[in-house]
Amino acid sequence: MKQSMTFIPTLREVPADAEVKSHQLMLRAGFIRQNTSGVYSYLPLAHKVLKKIEQIVREEMDKAGASELFMPALQQAELWQESGRWYSYGPELMRLKDRHGREFALGATHEEVITSLVRDEVKSYKRLPLSLYQIQTKFRDEKRPRFGILRGREFIMKDAYSFHATSESLDEGYQKMFNAYQNIFSRCGLDFRAVIADSGAMGGKDTHEFMVLSDIGEDTIAYSDTSQYAANIEMAPVIDSYEESIGEMEQLEKIETPNQKTIEEISAYLTVEREKCIKSILFKVDDRFVLVLVRGDHEVNDIKVKNLYGATVVDIATAEEVIENVKCVAGFIGPINVKSDIEIIADNAVKSISNGVCGANEEGFHYKGVNLKRDAKIDKYADLRFIQEGDKSPDGEGTIKFAKGIEVGHVFKLGTRYSEAMGATFLDENGRTQPMIMGCYGIGVSRTLAAIIEQHNDENGIVWPTTIAPYQIHIIPVNVKNDSQKNLAESLYNQFIQSGFEVLLDDRQERVGVKFADADLIGLPVRITVGKKAEEGIVEVKVRKTGEAFELAVTELQSKVKQILGNEK
Amino acid sequence: MKQSMTFIPTLREVPADAEVKSHQLMLRAGFIRQNTSGVYSYLPLAHKVLKKIEQIVREEMDKAGASELFMPALQQAELWQESGRWYSYGPELMRLKDRHGREFALGATHEEVITSLVRDEVKSYKRLPLSLYQIQTKFRDEKRPRFGILRGREFIMKDAYSFHATSESLDEGYQKMFNAYQNIFSRCGLDFRAVIADSGAMGGKDTHEFMVLSDIGEDTIAYSDTSQYAANIEMAPVIDSYEESIGEMEQLEKIETPNQKTIEEISAYLTVEREKCIKSILFKVDDRFVLVLVRGDHEVNDIKVKNLYGATVVDIATAEEVIENVKCVAGFIGPINVKSDIEIIADNAVKSISNGVCGANEEGFHYKGVNLKRDAKIDKYADLRFIQEGDKSPDGEGTIKFAKGIEVGHVFKLGTRYSEAMGATFLDENGRTQPMIMGCYGIGVSRTLAAIIEQHNDENGIVWPTTIAPYQIHIIPVNVKNDSQKNLAESLYNQFIQSGFEVLLDDRQERVGVKFADADLIGLPVRITVGKKAEEGIVEVKVRKTGEAFELAVTELQSKVKQILGNEK
Repeated sequence: MKQSMTFIPTLREVPADAEVKSHQLMLRAGFIRQNTSGVYSYLPLAHKVLKKIEQIVREEMDKAGASELFMPALQQAELWQESGRWYSYGPELMRLKDRHGREFALGATHEEVITSLVRDEVKSYKRLPLSLYQIQTKFRDEKRPRFGILRGREFIMKDAYSFHATSESLDEGYQKMFNAYQNIFSRCGLDFRAVIADSGAMGGKDTHEFMVLSDIGEDTIAYSDTSQYAANIEMAPVIDSYEESIGEMEQLEKIETPNQKTIEEISAYLTVEREKCIKSILFKVDDRFVLVLVRGDHEVNDIKVKNLYGATVVDIATAEEVIENVKCVAGFIGPINVKSDIEIIADNAVKSISNGVCGANEEGFHYKGVNLKRDAKIDKYADLRFIQEGDKSPDGEGTIKFAKGIEVGHVFKLGTRYSEAMGATFLDENGRTQPMIMGCYGIGVSRTLAAIIEQHNDENGIVWPTTIAPYQIHIIPVNVKNDSQKNLAESLYNQFIQSGFEVLLDDRQERVGVKFADADLIGLPVRITVGKKAEEGIVEVKVRKTGEAFELAVTELQSKVKQILGNEK
Repeated sequence: MKQSMTFIPTLREVPADAEVKSHQLMLRAGFIRQNTSGVYSYLPLAHKVLKKIEQIVREEMDKAGASELFMPALQQAELWQESGRWYSYGPELMRLKDRHGREFALGATHEEVITSLVRDEVKSYKRLPLSLYQIQTKFRDEKRPRFGILRGREFIMKDAYSFHATSESLDEGYQKMFNAYQNIFSRCGLDFRAVIADSGAMGGKDTHEFMVLSDIGEDTIAYSDTSQYAANIEMAPVIDSYEESIGEMEQLEKIETPNQKTIEEISAYLTVEREKCIKSILFKVDDRFVLVLVRGDHEVNDIKVKNLYGATVVDIATAEEVIENVKCVAGFIGPINVKSDIEIIADNAVKSISNGVCGANEEGFHYKGVNLKRDAKIDKYADLRFIQEGDKSPDGEGTIKFAKGIEVGHVFKLGTRYSEAMGATFLDENGRTQPMIMGCYGIGVSRTLAAIIEQHNDENGIVWPTTIAPYQIHIIPVNVKNDSQKNLAESLYNQFIQSGFEVLLDDRQERVGVKFADADLIGLPVRITVGKKAEEGIVEVKVRKTGEAFELAVTELQSKVKQILGNEK
C-alpha cells in the first residue's frame, strides 16, 4: 500500500484523554478514532490487524471442529424473555423498537439466538455434538467506557457455542476450545495465562479466563512461578500446611487498648507481629451470622466463606449488626467469651498462632497470650483466606506470584441453563427427551488488538509481532523528489509484494524526520530506508524490535528480510 | 468439512411463505433461517459464500485504490442532525437511546460518519483523493421486508466513499469504481447490466445501478439487444426519428363519443389504431398546469416533463383541477380549442400523426381528422414518453428490450451534498477553502448472494458457479458402514484438501437417496460418489451444472476434477 493513498492520520501529541498506552498509541499511530464515548472507527491499519487476528481465530476454530455462521445483531425481545435475561440483563443491554413498536435487543451476546436456532433444527443425539461460532460486532452499554477499545460499547467478538448429548462430550469440546485458545493467543504474540475463574451465578463447573498480563488489567491473577497454574485471585485455594502450635502457652491476659481497632494499630501498640494477631470479622451468611477468623496478615476471601456454607449472599456485617449480635463494637470483637451463640470458623493458618492477640469483646480491650485451643471454641478450620504472593502454588509446584490481567477470552461450561429455559431438547439413544448440554466460548477480538499493543510497544511507538503486523515491511525513500531514490523504493516495493510480503511505501512528500517518527509509531517489523546510496544499490535496514540498523546491498535484501521475519512468510 | 460436524439443516418441503426461488432454496438447502421479519441467520454454507463474495469485493476495491476500514453501527444523532437526515430519513432509520438517554441511529449508511472522520483529519489537497470502504452490517427498517435476504432489515453491505479536490478527480474515481463493480459482478457469475439511473433529489450528475437480470426484479431496465447500453426505464431517452406528416389532410370533424374516455375505448369505438389517437393529460408542474400530449400507444414519462421544466414536483392533475383549468372532464380534453391559456407540449412522436383523433374539450365528444399543425398550437415538441421495447437504442446501436432487474450495486456522484452540510473542507493549491467533492459506492453483499442463487438454480436446487461455491467438491460415500467406501471417501477427501480444494464429505448415516437430494439442493459443482466399485478404485463423478455423470478410476480423478472446475484453483 502506498501511504499517500491510504488513511493513517498520525498525531505528534499524546491525546490528553487517553490514559493507557494502547489507547494513546492507537490514536497517535492513526489506528482508531473515537466517534462517541466507547464507540470507535477502526482505520485501515487497525482493520488490517483485526483481519489477521480474525484469520488466526478462524483457523483455530476450524481446527477445533467448529463451523462459522453469522447471526443477527437485531434480536427480538421474545427470545430474551424466554431465557429470562430480558429482565435480568440490566442497562448494559441496548434495546430499541422497530417501526411497528416491536421490541428488540442489540446483540450483547448470542446464547438466545443460537439456542433457538439449534433447538428448531436438531432433534436427535445423532446430530450432536455441534459447535458453531461467529465473528461479529457486539453492543454493550458499559456504564463507564474506558481505555479506548479495551472497554467499549461496540466491539468485535468471536463467540462460539457447543451443544452436547453428554457431559463427557462437553468436557471434550471444552478441552478442544481451551487448546484452540492457547494457540490463538500464542500466535497473537501475547504473554497470557489461562486462569481458573469463578463460574458465578451460572452454576457452571469449569470456566477459564484467558488473561493477558498487563499492569492496566482490572483483575488480579495468582500464578505459579514455575508451573502453568493460574487462577483468579478469589478462586485460588491455599494449601493447608499449618501445624497446630505446640509451644509453651502464656497466660491469657486482658489488656487495655484504647482506640486500637485495626490490626495495624494493635500490632504497633503491642509491638507484636501481625501474624500473631487474630483478625475477627463478623459476616452475614444468607440469614445467619458467622464470626470468621484469619491471621492478621491475611484477608478473608468471602467467596470461600460462601462456598463453605453453600450460601447465596455473603456480606460483612454492618456496625449495627455487630453490636446487635456480639454486644460489642467492631474492632474489639474476638473468639473468646463471645456474648452470643454464633458459629466461629477460622482459616487454617490461625491454627498455628500461639500466644496471640485478639479482641476481648469489650470496647477498648484485647486479649494477649491467646491460644485458641485452650481459650475458645472454634467450630471449624477451613481455607478461608485469599492466597498471597509467596504462598505455595495450589498445584504443589512453585510459589505464587501476582499479576494484573486483561481478559481477552473466556471458556465456560454453560450446562443446561439455556437449553432448559428455552426447550432445546433432543432424543437420546434410548428415545428419551434430554436438554442439550452447552458450552460457550468468547474472544474479544478488538480487545485482543489493544492488548497486543499494550504488551508490544516502546517509547517510540508500537512494536508489532510479525504474525499480526498490519504490514511486515515499511519502505521509506528519504527524498521522493530524487528519482533514483523514488525508483529504487518503488521497485523494491513491487519486488517484495510479488514475493508475497505486505509492504507499506511512504511515498509522501514529507521531511524524513516525520517519516521516521511515523514509522516508529506505526511499528512495522522491518524498515527499509532508501537514501543517498540508492544509486549504489545500497539501502538501510532497521529492525523495529531490536533497533538494530545496518546498510545492505539490495541484492541481499530479500533473503535478509526473510530471515529477520523468521521465515514466517 | 465433514457434514456430520457442521450445520446444514435441509428441508424436503418448499416453505409456504417463501415466494421467490432464492428464498426457497436458501431455506431448503440450509443456508439461512429467519429470526424475525427481515432478519436472518446465515448458516455455515451461506457464510462461506458470503466470505467468497467479500473476498472478491476486497480484491477489486483494493485494486481500485480504496483502503478498507470499519466504522461503527452506533451513530450519534448529532451527526445525522448535521447532515439534516435525522429529520428527513423517516422510519427506515432505526433509532435508539443509550443508558444516558442520548440518541443514536443504527447505521443505515455511513455518509455522516465517514464525512466527519475525513473532515477532522484531511485539511489539504495534498491528501486527496482518498477512497475508503468497509464491509459491514446495515440496518434499515423496511416497511415490507420480503423475498428472504433480498430485502431484509439487517443486511451486509460494502460501502465505499471517495473524496476529491476536483470534479475531474471524482470522474476518475467514479470510473475506477465502475470498472471494479463490473469485475466484481462478473467474477460472481452474474448476468447483470450497469444501468443509467436517476440521480434523484441528490442533484448528482452521474449514477449507475448495477442490476442483476431477473424476473423477480422490482425495476424495469431498458437495454440494447446489441450494445452495452442499459438504463432505468425512466432514464432512457427516445431518439426523435419522427417526421411531420405531409399527407393529405382530412377535414376536422367533431363526433359524439358518449362515455368513451380511454384510448382503448376510443380506438375500439372509432375503429382507429391507437397510434392515431392523441393522448392528452393535464399535469401540475410545480404550481402551473401543462397539457402533455403523447401518442395513444405511448406513456408520458413524468421525469422527462419534470426535467424539461427543471421542476421540483410533477403530478397528474386531479379530476377537480382538470375541470377548473380546462373546463372539461378528463377523458375528453385535447389540444384543440382549449378553454384556457395553458401551455401545450407534445412528445416528438405526436408530430407524425395525421388525420388523428383527440378529445374535443367537451364531455362526450372527440375530434377526428386531426392535424395538429393545422388545428392546434403546440408550444413545444420534446422527448416526453417512456421508451418501449422495439424502440431504437439511445446509443444508436440495436433495439431496446426490457428486463427486470435486482439492484445489487450503485455508484453515485454525491458532489458536495455532505461536505457542505458538515463542513468537510480542504485548502486547495491556492490556499482557498473548498468543500470536498464526494462519491459513494454501495454493494449489497448479502443481496448479491441471493441474486446469484436466483440466476443459478434448476428444479433440483442451487447450481453454484465455481468461483463462489461454498465448497467445490461434494464426496458421498453411498454406505458409510462399508469400510472400503468409507475409507476411500475419507482418503479422497484428504487428498483433495491437500491439493487446495474445498471439500464437503457427506459422512452422515443417511440413505443415499437423501444424500443425493441434499447434494443437488446444496449444488456444489462436482459430486464424487463412492459406491460399490470402491474396492476396484472406481467412483462416479457428476457435474452439477450439466448433469453429466461418468465412472472414473481414482487415479484419474484429480486431473479430471481440476479440468471440470476450469483450473480455477
